[in-house]
Amino acid sequence: MGADHAHTIRTAVPAATVVAVADVDGERAVTLSQQLGARVFVNDDDLIASPDVDAVIIASHDSAHAHQVLACINAGKPVLCEKPLAPTVEDCHRIVVAQQERDQGDLVSVGFMRRFHAGFAAMKAELASGELGAPLLVVGSHRNVHAYPTGGSEGTLTNSAVHDIDIIEWLLGHPIVEVGWYAPKPTSLDTSRHDPQLIQLRNADGVLASIDLFVNAQYGYDVHYEVVCERGAVRLTPTAPIVTDRDLTHAYQHPADWRPFFAEAYRLELQAWTDAVSNGRPTPLATAENGLRSTLVAQALVQSMRMRQAVMVNDVWSDLVNSGV
Amino acid sequence: MGADHAHTIRTAVPAATVVAVADVDGERAVTLSQQLGARVFVNDDDLIASPDVDAVIIASHDSAHAHQVLACINAGKPVLCEKPLAPTVEDCHRIVVAQQERDQGDLVSVGFMRRFHAGFAAMKAELASGELGAPLLVVGSHRNVHAYPTGGSEGTLTNSAVHDIDIIEWLLGHPIVEVGWYAPKPTSLDTSRHDPQLIQLRNADGVLASIDLFVNAQYGYDVHYEVVCERGAVRLTPTAPIVTDRDLTHAYQHPADWRPFFAEAYRLELQAWTDAVSNGRPTPLATAENGLRSTLVAQALVQSMRMRQAVMVNDVWSDLVNSGV
Amino acid sequence: MGADHAHTIRTAVPAATVVAVADVDGERAVTLSQQLGARVFVNDDDLIASPDVDAVIIASHDSAHAHQVLACINAGKPVLCEKPLAPTVEDCHRIVVAQQERDQGDLVSVGFMRRFHAGFAAMKAELASGELGAPLLVVGSHRNVHAYPTGGSEGTLTNSAVHDIDIIEWLLGHPIVEVGWYAPKPTSLDTSRHDPQLIQLRNADGVLASIDLFVNAQYGYDVHYEVVCERGAVRLTPTAPIVTDRDLTHAYQHPADWRPFFAEAYRLELQAWTDAVSNGRPTPLATAENGLRSTLVAQALVQSMRMRQAVMVNDVWSDLVNSGV
Amino acid sequence: MGADHAHTIRTAVPAATVVAVADVDGERAVTLSQQLGARVFVNDDDLIASPDVDAVIIASHDSAHAHQVLACINAGKPVLCEKPLAPTVEDCHRIVVAQQERDQGDLVSVGFMRRFHAGFAAMKAELASGELGAPLLVVGSHRNVHAYPTGGSEGTLTNSAVHDIDIIEWLLGHPIVEVGWYAPKPTSLDTSRHDPQLIQLRNADGVLASIDLFVNAQYGYDVHYEVVCERGAVRLTPTAPIVTDRDLTHAYQHPADWRPFFAEAYRLELQAWTDAVSNGRPTPLATAENGLRSTLVAQALVQSMRMRQAVMVNDVWSDLVNSGV
Repeated sequence: MGADHAHTIRTAVPAATVVAVADVDGERAVTLSQQLGARVFVNDDDLIASPDVDAVIIASHDSAHAHQVLACINAGKPVLCEKPLAPTVEDCHRIVVAQQERDQGDLVSVGFMRRFHAGFAAMKAELASGELGAPLLVVGSHRNVHAYPTGGSEGTLTNSAVHDIDIIEWLLGHPIVEVGWYAPKPTSLDTSRHDPQLIQLRNADGVLASIDLFVNAQYGYDVHYEVVCERGAVRLTPTAPIVTDRDLTHAYQHPADWRPFFAEAYRLELQAWTDAVSNGRPTPLATAENGLRSTLVAQALVQSMRMRQAVMVNDVWSDLVNSGV
Repeated sequence: MGADHAHTIRTAVPAATVVAVADVDGERAVTLSQQLGARVFVNDDDLIASPDVDAVIIASHDSAHAHQVLACINAGKPVLCEKPLAPTVEDCHRIVVAQQERDQGDLVSVGFMRRFHAGFAAMKAELASGELGAPLLVVGSHRNVHAYPTGGSEGTLTNSAVHDIDIIEWLLGHPIVEVGWYAPKPTSLDTSRHDPQLIQLRNADGVLASIDLFVNAQYGYDVHYEVVCERGAVRLTPTAPIVTDRDLTHAYQHPADWRPFFAEAYRLELQAWTDAVSNGRPTPLATAENGLRSTLVAQALVQSMRMRQAVMVNDVWSDLVNSGV
Repeated sequence: MGADHAHTIRTAVPAATVVAVADVDGERAVTLSQQLGARVFVNDDDLIASPDVDAVIIASHDSAHAHQVLACINAGKPVLCEKPLAPTVEDCHRIVVAQQERDQGDLVSVGFMRRFHAGFAAMKAELASGELGAPLLVVGSHRNVHAYPTGGSEGTLTNSAVHDIDIIEWLLGHPIVEVGWYAPKPTSLDTSRHDPQLIQLRNADGVLASIDLFVNAQYGYDVHYEVVCERGAVRLTPTAPIVTDRDLTHAYQHPADWRPFFAEAYRLELQAWTDAVSNGRPTPLATAENGLRSTLVAQALVQSMRMRQAVMVNDVWSDLVNSGV
Repeated sequence: MGADHAHTIRTAVPAATVVAVADVDGERAVTLSQQLGARVFVNDDDLIASPDVDAVIIASHDSAHAHQVLACINAGKPVLCEKPLAPTVEDCHRIVVAQQERDQGDLVSVGFMRRFHAGFAAMKAELASGELGAPLLVVGSHRNVHAYPTGGSEGTLTNSAVHDIDIIEWLLGHPIVEVGWYAPKPTSLDTSRHDPQLIQLRNADGVLASIDLFVNAQYGYDVHYEVVCERGAVRLTPTAPIVTDRDLTHAYQHPADWRPFFAEAYRLELQAWTDAVSNGRPTPLATAENGLRSTLVAQALVQSMRMRQAVMVNDVWSDLVNSGV
């Protein structure tokens, strides 16, 4: 994603220039830097500290996020961190606290790009118009063609479900307070994790969301969302640009992964972020608090999966506080 | 529904003639009988016993089903009973036992008309072809414009959810063994019941179904179903015959109730039933055992709603047996 | 189609019984008659004359229609003739005149089954409601998978385009007065005719229809229709009952020929015809005059194809009258 | 459109900066220049000549295009001119000749933005793949909510139909050689022009396109396109991001004009143009020759409308040459 973001900035984001690149894979960093005319840093801390660098985008391995984001906060530099903000609630919390202590406004944004997707944005506007009445129920699907090789069942929650957690909090404007995890019949095509999974998320307003996550769905990258309200419902539409008729079949193509589905959302996110950052305004992206919340709710789902019962998000939080977050 | 069935028989079911009618509303019976040239019986038992009557369709109040179906069994006459076979497991079981004791083949069919709907039938054929691999997850919606005035939260389960229970057992060929009941935020437009409801049904093969029931959905009569399999998914399509473009809007109309959606299914069901009955063959409709199962699973859902926890269908059955079903 | 109609009557049309069958293929007649318990006539005139026969359905070769329909008129028996009423305007006219001379109400109905298709019927109702304003333009497509082996370019007009001619006159309630024929690039897969063809039909109200006919479209049986009005437009929707997701493809299936697309329309047409005939009422089907008109307009299209210029329907009629129709 | 382009450049086109603005409406120029931090020129020639200006975008009144484009050619500066390149063939030809005489590669690009629309681009790729076989027929619709106040029937052709002319030449890779103009029933809502219009365009490969243009369609901005090939067909899909269910209606919204429909296409066009220009490469946009061709074919349509007969494009060209273009 780092290279993707860099190319998007070069081709479509006038408010920023990629001046420096760092990557654990040094060769990849060199290649990218040559394409962009950017400097390569061997050490990410040096990049963050460099006076040539005004703001930082982090698309490193999840496990590196916290250290890098904290370095940005310490350097007083705006940072856009890919989701998850950090894989553990503890690290997310550390970031939130560090940012608050600096008391200089929000430096941290989190890359929940769904908020910039035309469909989700139109859905939020429709709900905000009030014409459909109060939201009651969300039904969604989040399906990938193939799973990443690592991660296991918990990775589906901490890596994929965080998108659903964040978008539901954002769409409906209330935090998720209770979660449940349920097991459909598992596919025989990936025995390294439970797949698909079905999760339920209830927010503070009482709205219940039922979302299936299927990281080995095979058939295509596919995201459905429907919000059912008192007087009507709203749904995302498919986004394929053409349909073909051939061999007794009327068809459109699914994307093979999320990139085509969210290409425009990534661009709009980067434009919004750079525009805000370069003008010293708060960004309209997800905040560090949003990043913390999505990881916390994912953690509650992990517990629900382990215990096979519904879990209150606040209980997970309290346990963490008691054990010294 | 009784009058609807009678008119369907008159216009589209050559294998049968409506010769007699009975209704608790005597005036309605007279009107219908005149339209059809049929005889009116004041007493339903007399109608069932009449030598002019070869077979019986029951579309009376749910509470009358058991008595009438048992009368048909005693009279040795094929009977098509509208769903539910009976509102209690006890009565359904009594029917099943009575039929077995007569030992003369199945006399009882139950009107789960979804089995004759073009979409559900095509979905079953697609699953049977095996091209999508093993089914893993079902996601469905069952929405009405307005609730019937009576019934309350349990009525949604015993009256509406029985359709979903039966169709899932039929589509996937396995009995449902475990259920869960969940509460979305309730609509403020009907305070006499919890609405919508979200239910989970797990079958003996491990497949999980998540179905929302919303009897006051306002926006239209709407049924969605998707079966997600190892290698792909299959979904019902909308059935509106035309779309219009007007006032910046591209739209099709939802039916106001289930009748237009299932009109063809009712016709095919009646044709299949009369064809089988008049030829002395077993009917391809839902059996008394299916009717018992759907009421039993609905009862398990009622318990899940009351206890707010997942319920094993067999436990409900055992409790009933122990209490002397 | 004859056997199809007979089976539809047996399974879904209570108002009629198939008592007799005739076919140039005697073996086929015997097979069908055994399935139906009907008598076989070697000679079609004998069948028509038989006192057991109250009404006749003609689905013979187009060239036999006129003789058989005239025999029915002479016998005073209601007749439903498959389209075209006859392949020549002269024969159609002879039928119309013969019917008028008998002066006993319309005996002849023509099997333009599109009028009973749910989509076309809903489209006509939408237009009649006036909410879209006055119709201005019709855009349509009429595509088959493979052409019949015979017929050539003119056969596409006299055999396929007659459906479009009739439905447009019926939908808009005005006769077609002028036609034009245009040649898209011909497919290389059938060199025995010009295929596809593009035709224009203008009615007496000034509305213009542009319809493409493609009898070797390969990809599926497919009919599109859009009527564009002053304030909006109305279109047929696809009718596939399910969609599947598989191999990066979201798809529904096209029918391989028109039968599945029009199965319900044929049934409703037969029910309407038998219902009217058995009650001595005029049928709501296309009349002999409609059959004459569609063949006349098709003839004008043949002339337009030959002359490569627009043709007035009345001129074709006058020429025929002058040459002694 | 000028202001739209300027804002798109500012927010999404890194390879260019808007340094100068000119507008016949001086106030509008000042407002825009302040938003962009750009200089205002009272005189467009001065802007074109300014050494600060490397390249020019022309979105002035159609009648001003030729003069301004020629000034750019004389100044040796790349220019992107909104369609039409010029309203007369003579002026388009003058531009083509002027560019050739400078012999320094193409300076002129024309803003046929459909070429950058995701749907049209995917359609071209699908055709190029060859999987559908040879194209035979194009069926299209081009509908606006309201007509511009001026222009009349010819304006629909020279201003709107040029888009269809260009995209069909681009999609199929062959020039249009013959055209026909046809009159549907005119709407009563605009008596100042004939509306809708139906045009036929035949290209050098024999493919026929039938396109309806309806500039007062009322119901929404709507563009349909289908290319029918020997083995299948390809169509644009609708692009609304959400659907809603409400009041027995399932609906998506049409845009009120072309801007939302083509917003992404304009951005990609500007990115492609600035990227090519800033790197001294030929642009992938429509050329001056394309601009000339579309105006020439539109002129042939105007003649076809006046004469009510098909017109060969080469004849129009020859007439113009003979009269001294």
